[in-house]
Amino acid sequence: MDFVIFGGSVVTMSERGIIRDGAVVVEGDTIIDVGRSDEIRRKYPRYEKIDADGKVIMPGLINAHQHAAMSLLRGYADDYPLKEWLEEWVWPLERHMTGYDIYVGALLTAVESVIGGTTTINTMYHYMEDHNEAMAIAEVGLRGVVGHVCFSWRKEQDIKALEDSARRWHRGADGRIRVSVDPHAPYTVDPEYMRELRAVTRELNEKYASAEAPVIWHIHLAETSDEAQKIRESFGIYVPDGIVDYMDALGVLGGDVVAAHCVHLTPKDIEILRLRGVKVAHNPISNMKLASGVSPVPKLLKAGVTVALGTDSPCSNNSADMFEVMKFAALLHKGVNMDPTLLPAGTVLRMATIDGARAILWDREIGSIEVGKKADIIIVDFRKPHLCPLYSEVSHLVYAAKASDVETVIVNGRILMENRELKTVKADEVMEMARKTQEKLLERLREMR
Amino acid sequence: MDFVIFGGSVVTMSERGIIRDGAVVVEGDTIIDVGRSDEIRRKYPRYEKIDADGKVIMPGLINAHQHAAMSLLRGYADDYPLKEWLEEWVWPLERHMTGYDIYVGALLTAVESVIGGTTTINTMYHYMEDHNEAMAIAEVGLRGVVGHVCFSWRKEQDIKALEDSARRWHRGADGRIRVSVDPHAPYTVDPEYMRELRAVTRELNEKYASAEAPVIWHIHLAETSDEAQKIRESFGIYVPDGIVDYMDALGVLGGDVVAAHCVHLTPKDIEILRLRGVKVAHNPISNMKLASGVSPVPKLLKAGVTVALGTDSPCSNNSADMFEVMKFAALLHKGVNMDPTLLPAGTVLRMATIDGARAILWDREIGSIEVGKKADIIIVDFRKPHLCPLYSEVSHLVYAAKASDVETVIVNGRILMENRELKTVKADEVMEMARKTQEKLLERLREMR
Repeated sequence: MDFVIFGGSVVTMSERGIIRDGAVVVEGDTIIDVGRSDEIRRKYPRYEKIDADGKVIMPGLINAHQHAAMSLLRGYADDYPLKEWLEEWVWPLERHMTGYDIYVGALLTAVESVIGGTTTINTMYHYMEDHNEAMAIAEVGLRGVVGHVCFSWRKEQDIKALEDSARRWHRGADGRIRVSVDPHAPYTVDPEYMRELRAVTRELNEKYASAEAPVIWHIHLAETSDEAQKIRESFGIYVPDGIVDYMDALGVLGGDVVAAHCVHLTPKDIEILRLRGVKVAHNPISNMKLASGVSPVPKLLKAGVTVALGTDSPCSNNSADMFEVMKFAALLHKGVNMDPTLLPAGTVLRMATIDGARAILWDREIGSIEVGKKADIIIVDFRKPHLCPLYSEVSHLVYAAKASDVETVIVNGRILMENRELKTVKADEVMEMARKTQEKLLERLREMR
Repeated sequence: MDFVIFGGSVVTMSERGIIRDGAVVVEGDTIIDVGRSDEIRRKYPRYEKIDADGKVIMPGLINAHQHAAMSLLRGYADDYPLKEWLEEWVWPLERHMTGYDIYVGALLTAVESVIGGTTTINTMYHYMEDHNEAMAIAEVGLRGVVGHVCFSWRKEQDIKALEDSARRWHRGADGRIRVSVDPHAPYTVDPEYMRELRAVTRELNEKYASAEAPVIWHIHLAETSDEAQKIRESFGIYVPDGIVDYMDALGVLGGDVVAAHCVHLTPKDIEILRLRGVKVAHNPISNMKLASGVSPVPKLLKAGVTVALGTDSPCSNNSADMFEVMKFAALLHKGVNMDPTLLPAGTVLRMATIDGARAILWDREIGSIEVGKKADIIIVDFRKPHLCPLYSEVSHLVYAAKASDVETVIVNGRILMENRELKTVKADEVMEMARKTQEKLLERLREMR
C-alpha cells in the first residue's frame, strides 16, 4: 500500500528536527518523501491518506534488550533476592518451557510491543528449531533481531541452533528479521567458547549475511557487581580490572556487540567500550527492580558511547513498554546524580530511536524518518488531557506520553495497528494461548515437584 | 443509583484481602456489602449490575501531594537546574495566573486524575475567591483536600483566603471536599507565622470542622538539601539538627500534618516524624526529575511512619498518573539501596490507597473497600496483553497495569467514568479551555517582558 500520513508534527529524529503540519510518504516498505503537508498533498494527490492532525508522527521505538518469551513469567515472582528469584522461581519454570511455549510468549510480547509503539525488538532467548521467537515476530509483522543464548554447558546444541537460526531467519520475513549470536554472559561462557563464538559469528556472516545486514552479538555485561567473582569461581581466572577489560583481553569486543546493562564499570571499562565501539543497551527498569545498581549512563554518553534503551524481560520489568523506559531513563540519572540537567528529553528520545538502530547496526534502514529508510512509523495521539497543553513534543513524548497513546503502528510499510486496532493478529487469541501455556507450565512444574 | 459490581477480583485493601469472583454493593454514596458474587447476586437481585469479569475492583487511588492547577505548565520547562527552572520559567508564568486559570488547570488535572483511576487528590495551590481548585474538583465529581499555600510575604491575604476556603468549601460538595492549611515550607514561612497558622487551623477546625473531618496541614518538608541554609539566610536561625527537628521545636508538628517529600532527613528527624504521627507524602517521580534526592522511605516505613504517594505537580512529573508513581516508588528504593525486597508490591499498593487515606485523616471513609465506607471504587480491566498471564493481581497493579487500564471510576457512589467514557465533564472542552488559557498566559508573559 502507498500512502501519505499528513497533518501531524513529524518528529524525524534526523537533522531535520520537527516538521510541524508535516507529512510522510510511504511507497511499499520505504519512506519516499518527507515534508510539509501542503506541498506533499499537492505532490501525491492519488495516494491513500492518513490524517494525523493533533498527533505526532515519529519513528517506531527500538527495544534494544528483551527476552520476549519471558512474558509468560510476568508477575510470577517479584520482590525476591536475585539468587532466590532465579534459582527457586524463574529457572525451574523455564526448564519446562517447550519451543511452542517460547513461541507463544514471544507472540504475546510482539503484540504488547506493537500496541505500545515498539517496532523493533532485540531479543535473546533459547532458539529451538520447531518453534521460536523469530516465528512469532515474523507472524505479527514486527521487526527484530532474534538471538540464541549460548552457555558453556551446551556448546554443541548452541552451534546447531545458531546455524539453523541464521540459515532460516537471517534477513528473513521481507528483511524484517535478523539473527544474533548471544553469549549469555562472561561468567557462563568460558573464554575458549567465547572466542569460538566469535569464529562462528564470522562464519555465519560469510554464509548468510551482507555488510549492510550483519549477524551481530548480544550479551549481558556487568549487570551485577559479582561477575568478576563468578568468573573466578567458574573458570579460575582472576579479573583485576573490570569485566569489560576482561572481555577485551579475549579479543571479542567490537562495534557489532550489543552489551546489555553495563552497570558495574570501571573508568577503564568505559574507555574500552568507546574504543571498541561496543553499544550499550541500558535497562533502567529491570536494573532497579532486580536491584542490580545504576549504570553510569551519563559517563557513557559523555565518553561518546552509543547507549540504547531496553525493557529487559517482562519478568523483570514487568512490561514491554518503551515509553515507560524512556521516562525511567530520563529521571533515574537525574535523581541518583542529583543533577536535573542529565539525560534531557531529546537525548532519551534518541536513545529509544536512532541510537537503538545504531546499536543493532540497522540505522541505515530504521531509527529515523528519512527518505530511503524503511517505513517503521508510529502515530501518537496528542489530543489527550495528559498531553495538554503542548509546549514541546519531545518533552511530552518522554515525560508525559503513554504507550496507550500510540494510535497507529507501521512496520516495513505495513500497518500493524490502526486507530488501536490490531491488523495482523488477534490479541484475544494470543492472550488465550498464553493463559493455556501458563496453565500447562504450572502443571508440569507441580508434577516435577 | 444503587448497584452491584460483580464478577471481578475485589482487592479490598482491608484485612479481607482479595476476594476472587467477588462483588461490591453500593447504595447512595456508601458501600453496603462486599462478598462473593454468587451470594451477593442472590441477596440484591433488583440492583443494577456492573459486570467486572476479568477485571479488578479496588479502592480509587489517593494522590497525597499535588498542585493541580500546574497542569498548565506541563512540559513548559524541563531539564533545567532547579533555581533556573523556578526563577526563570515557573514563577514568571505563575505570576500571571488568574483565579480562572487556576480553575482551568485544576479542571484539567481533575479530568486526568479520573481517567487514570485517582479518586482523591490532596492539592496545594493559591486559593482565590472568584475561582479556585475546589470548584474544579467539585465540578468533576472528584474527592479532594484543597489547600491554600501560605507565605510570610502575604500573611493578611493568606488568612483571608484560609477563612474563605474553609467557610465555603470544608465538607462541601456532598462531603467530597475538605480544605487544608498549607504553610509553603519552613524556609518561606517564618517561625512566628508558622505558629500563627497553627492557631488559625485550630480556629477553622472549631468553626467549620468535625473530629471526623478535620482541617489538616499540608507542607513541603526537607525536599532539597539546602533548606537549613535557606532558613538561616531568611530568618537568621541556625538549624543544627535537621529540618524536622527545627519544625518540632516550633511545636507545630502533629498527626494532622502531611509533609511532602521528606527527602533529607536525619535519624532524629525520622524519630520525630514517628513520635508526632506526621504523615509523609512521597513523590518519587518529582524528586527524581528535579534531582532533589531520594527519600529514605524504607527507613520511614521501618520506623512505622505512614507514607503515602503523590505525583507532585504536572510541571515536575509531568503526569498525574498514580499507577506510574506506584511503579517508580516500588523500583526506586530497590535500585538505589540495591535490595530487591524493599517496598514489595503489596506495601506500595497500600501507600497509594489506605495509607493515602490515613495521611489525609480520611481513612474512616475511604482508602479501602469495606462496608460503611464511601464508594470510591475503580474497575481495572485486566483483559489486556500487558496484564497477561495473571499470577498476582497485586503484582500486576504495581508493576504492569497502566492508568489507561482503568475502565470505570466511582466517587461517592457516583459514576464519573464508565467504560472509559467520562460522565460529568467533556474532556475535549476542558482541553480547549486549557489551550486558550495557555495562549493567554504566554501572551501576558510576552507583554511583560
